[in-house]
Amino acid sequence: MIKDDAYFMAIALKEAKKAALHDEVPVGAVIVLGDKVISKAYNKRVEKEQTHAHAEMLAIQKANKKLNSWRLEDCKLYVTLEPCPMCAGAIIQSRMKTVVYGAKDPKGGVAGSIMNLFDIKFNHQVEVIGGILEEACSNELKSFFKQLRNKS
Amino acid sequence: MIKDDAYFMAIALKEAKKAALHDEVPVGAVIVLGDKVISKAYNKRVEKEQTHAHAEMLAIQKANKKLNSWRLEDCKLYVTLEPCPMCAGAIIQSRMKTVVYGAKDPKGGVAGSIMNLFDIKFNHQVEVIGGILEEACSNELKSFFKQLRNKS
Repeated sequence: MIKDDAYFMAIALKEAKKAALHDEVPVGAVIVLGDKVISKAYNKRVEKEQTHAHAEMLAIQKANKKLNSWRLEDCKLYVTLEPCPMCAGAIIQSRMKTVVYGAKDPKGGVAGSIMNLFDIKFNHQVEVIGGILEEACSNELKSFFKQLRNKS
Repeated sequence: MIKDDAYFMAIALKEAKKAALHDEVPVGAVIVLGDKVISKAYNKRVEKEQTHAHAEMLAIQKANKKLNSWRLEDCKLYVTLEPCPMCAGAIIQSRMKTVVYGAKDPKGGVAGSIMNLFDIKFNHQVEVIGGILEEACSNELKSFFKQLRNKS
């Protein structure tokens, strides 16, 4: 199997589905070094009652532990939803090479939707790729919120 | 003693000094609810080898635990240095009422220096106050980097 962006995004999407099973907004993230997945995580904000517990932040924490470094140079982060400012900021702080996202977040995304934080001249620049498995990532979120509305 | 912004910033500055003693960039943060300090933290990025371990993030995590909530509405965060995008994003995500910072960070600060992330129309707006104990906070950083240069 070719390990392209769609391959790794499919793994992130599996993580997002785990979040939905735990009644969390279904967002999943994966960090890849070379062609190996070094960390996977899904949104646990409600379960953990921690502001920072978005999928990307938890994936970055796991990758930090794995590499024993706060720097994640040469890594690529795949996330099913366009990052919020906290996660985009953490991606920049980690010196990540590339971020690849699935669905756009028109209300909170800062990789082009509300603004593009990755275009600001910080001391590190991250390559951004959007729209990988966009429809599948978006549908996962839509069906979650639809079910939530039906429950209430 | 009047518990004003300078009072709480002085506590954050004490935290920053602890960071310097551990060879970390001296930034300290304090979260206040009403007139009570509910969490204190200092930068531990190198010690922990965790991208996210800035003073503000660690203070937010502790406050989350204390209040058993990812929401920190009605809280004020005091930090000795203007926040980076990750920390500014976390402050917005936490629904914090106010952020008060000491020194400006011309190279990485997003509360007015490089840009103002708090001016962007997210679903929550945070009040920003800058320049409290600015000189003392700035001097703490300057003397740290001066010592670092002398060591190398």
